[in-house]
Amino acid sequence: MSRYTPLLQQLIDALRILPGVGPKSAQRMAFALLERNRDAGLALADALAQAMTKIGHCQRCRTFCQSTLCAICADPKRELDGIMCVVGSAADQHAIEQIGQFKGRYFVLQGYLSPLDGIGPQDLGLDSLSSLLAEGGTTELILATNPTVEGDATAFYIAELAQKHNVKVSRIAQGIPIGGELEFIDGTTLSHAFSGRKQF
Amino acid sequence: MSRYTPLLQQLIDALRILPGVGPKSAQRMAFALLERNRDAGLALADALAQAMTKIGHCQRCRTFCQSTLCAICADPKRELDGIMCVVGSAADQHAIEQIGQFKGRYFVLQGYLSPLDGIGPQDLGLDSLSSLLAEGGTTELILATNPTVEGDATAFYIAELAQKHNVKVSRIAQGIPIGGELEFIDGTTLSHAFSGRKQF
Ligand SMILES: [Zn+2]
Ligand SMILES: [Zn+2]
Repeated sequence: MSRYTPLLQQLIDALRILPGVGPKSAQRMAFALLERNRDAGLALADALAQAMTKIGHCQRCRTFCQSTLCAICADPKRELDGIMCVVGSAADQHAIEQIGQFKGRYFVLQGYLSPLDGIGPQDLGLDSLSSLLAEGGTTELILATNPTVEGDATAFYIAELAQKHNVKVSRIAQGIPIGGELEFIDGTTLSHAFSGRKQF
Repeated sequence: MSRYTPLLQQLIDALRILPGVGPKSAQRMAFALLERNRDAGLALADALAQAMTKIGHCQRCRTFCQSTLCAICADPKRELDGIMCVVGSAADQHAIEQIGQFKGRYFVLQGYLSPLDGIGPQDLGLDSLSSLLAEGGTTELILATNPTVEGDATAFYIAELAQKHNVKVSRIAQGIPIGGELEFIDGTTLSHAFSGRKQF
């Protein structure tokens, strides 16, 4: 027996598809459930099966959703003044919602343009975004993509799309994080903070 | 929407029962499966459900097992000279099997004596161990419990049990780990290494 009983080995292998879970922690997880918490293990199995089969995407904004329209897209109050925020992922959207400051709608790319990985405009639903903008009613597009090479390239592509439809485009500010200490901030951020300086 | 769509929130909450998984990593896991790997997510759900419902304990040695006897207990070659190794968990048993040096059978406690947590001799199957020893045929009990307070107390308890049945007892050596550097080894280990010194 250099391997476990087949079902246990199968569980350890299956747990390793979770990001950040190596062989040792997969083993620890399997034992913790088997020894102390089989009911919770069964509940997790059920939650996984339901989520994988029943969660789709909002037809309008592409965020994760169990019906055709998500709660935000279905809420007329969120139409606001036609301001729409473009984010890279549902997790980013969630982070912005947590602040409670933005009251408009979203468009969730679920990724960034990456020619090397074969991710093009269609994979991010940019054809749907184009149709949404063509419908009219959108007054401003706030680009809240990651400040990375891929996030920047995607923002640039969407900005051109918006300009084609005569929609105002803005990008969330890049600079030194609040509470950050200058001496510990990387040079690129500092350089962005300088070139993006505002009159006092 | 300060929370996710219900099934997504339910999945994130369910993932947190895994040891070492906090809210941020549960979220990351849920997104990774939903965005890129739904088939693997379903396979994990199935592996969990099967493991939780179909894995029991070997009737003889208490290790995780799908039938009444585990592969080792069912193998007459592992009867050896009646040497049995007592370990705290199936993971410890697995670690010893990986070395491939020990050819006898095991007794897997699935825990250690801990009066404060209400874990007594019966929870560790020590009544079964006593019956096994009473049957005869066991010549030596190697105690491979953890070198911790609870592991030591459990080893002490089992040693008394073995002596009652006139079975020889030994404990795996405690000392400096091979390849370890003396200056970085904790005082307790070093002290054990001194008191356990052998003639050269
Ligand atoms: Zn939506
Ligand atoms: Zn067994």
